[in-house]
Amino acid sequence: MTPPACSVAQAEVFEWQDGAGRAIEDTLAVEEPLEIRVNGTPVTVTMRTPGHDLELAAGFLFTEGILQSADEVAGLRAADFEILAKSNTVDVELRTQGFDAARLQRNFFAASSCGICGKATIESIRRRGLCAPNAQMRVRPEVLCGLPDAIRAQQAVFDCTGGLHAAALFDSEGNLLALREDIGRHNAVDKVIGWAMRAARMPLAESILMVSGRGGFEIAQKALAAGVPVLASVSAPSSLAVELARELGLTLIGFLRGRRYVVYAGASRCLPDV
Amino acid sequence: MTPPACSVAQAEVFEWQDGAGRAIEDTLAVEEPLEIRVNGTPVTVTMRTPGHDLELAAGFLFTEGILQSADEVAGLRAADFEILAKSNTVDVELRTQGFDAARLQRNFFAASSCGICGKATIESIRRRGLCAPNAQMRVRPEVLCGLPDAIRAQQAVFDCTGGLHAAALFDSEGNLLALREDIGRHNAVDKVIGWAMRAARMPLAESILMVSGRGGFEIAQKALAAGVPVLASVSAPSSLAVELARELGLTLIGFLRGRRYVVYAGASRCLPDV
Repeated sequence: MTPPACSVAQAEVFEWQDGAGRAIEDTLAVEEPLEIRVNGTPVTVTMRTPGHDLELAAGFLFTEGILQSADEVAGLRAADFEILAKSNTVDVELRTQGFDAARLQRNFFAASSCGICGKATIESIRRRGLCAPNAQMRVRPEVLCGLPDAIRAQQAVFDCTGGLHAAALFDSEGNLLALREDIGRHNAVDKVIGWAMRAARMPLAESILMVSGRGGFEIAQKALAAGVPVLASVSAPSSLAVELARELGLTLIGFLRGRRYVVYAGASRCLPDV
Repeated sequence: MTPPACSVAQAEVFEWQDGAGRAIEDTLAVEEPLEIRVNGTPVTVTMRTPGHDLELAAGFLFTEGILQSADEVAGLRAADFEILAKSNTVDVELRTQGFDAARLQRNFFAASSCGICGKATIESIRRRGLCAPNAQMRVRPEVLCGLPDAIRAQQAVFDCTGGLHAAALFDSEGNLLALREDIGRHNAVDKVIGWAMRAARMPLAESILMVSGRGGFEIAQKALAAGVPVLASVSAPSSLAVELARELGLTLIGFLRGRRYVVYAGASRCLPDV
């Protein structure tokens, strides 16, 4: 796989091995800030790996509850993107004028009048109207066990830099729908969800989301926002991700490696015999 | 190593292995929100692993440029911490009344009038007054190669959950000064820097900071804020971390595993023979 040119950079570096040093050429994953503007107002700056920036902006606004659907977007463009093939700003125009830039922060603080805690955090997700994803979906163990290899085969930037997170969407038979890489785990997730929005595939009621890192609260929240029924990761989930998944009916799978995985929530979708 | 009780939680989960499933008890890394308040004003909410919260608050405010030194802090306390051994709020009282809550965001945006880009991001670090750390410090290859094992031996929460980041401070001979774990890489770094602040060890002009994950821009920036001359990680750095390290004279080491590492910037401190 050849990575997008904007996602990697070359550098002269020094390698030390067993007492001997030598200069080598190394390939780095690019990290650059991206400013997302909504109706002209800067909403956030995120450090990301360039590439698929429009998807990142769309996915971020959607999973953070600023956008309810792709239909609200009148325009989405990266300044000078066509000319320079590089831009660090995405302008999102909504059909409605009344965008409230403070909504992002209030989504969190609104629920915490009783104090800052995990329960209040989960309650804030409920208040956004997020609910249980498709209860009918099933996924076979053999399908789950095939996902990590399918991801590795497609990780173009990781292959040459050794340092990038990936998020991938699969259908319930394990067919890869989209894979995106980023220096930030949450950005990789926003990118695949943004891809689904722009491809008119929302909600992702028959999909599996697999991430290369941990399954933390933020990632589980983004999966729920997109209607994903099954979230899998190669590593451990956090306590709050497990609580959220159990309360909202998300199937949460961790330590998916080789022929083993651990189901932390929603086992009925992936253990049909039990 | 026994982890702090507040950092881990037990859960009944389901393990699938090679066609057979069984219920097992699993230990999870706790993730809970922490609100940091300065002079009564909420400054940020970060998802973190409870434990060493006062260090996290102090380190965060310092590395983000809100605090210039520990002397500015008149009081630092976690509400109800003594009674409940658990709190999700830290109140920081500064000696000065004139705290400007918007400074955090402005630190970034101030430099980006010329556009959002890596150069502007590095420039914003310069404007905060961050400068080259101790140029005299040296660290031997043998010392570097010993750091990963020293970290693993102390990672109490990782050992039983398989899912936590660590940051550790060492002196130039590889003696461990402090190690902290957190679900967030940046939080683990803030915690060890907060530890150094509270132990009156700032700046960390003779220290090595080692992190378990990647060496991204944010981590390099935090190391520079604390005056750390050598930043090492087991994984790959990003392009912007390398640029920042080269411009500000930080030694940046990646892929530190076994008897090999790659030096991305500031090689003079760790390759004395070259």
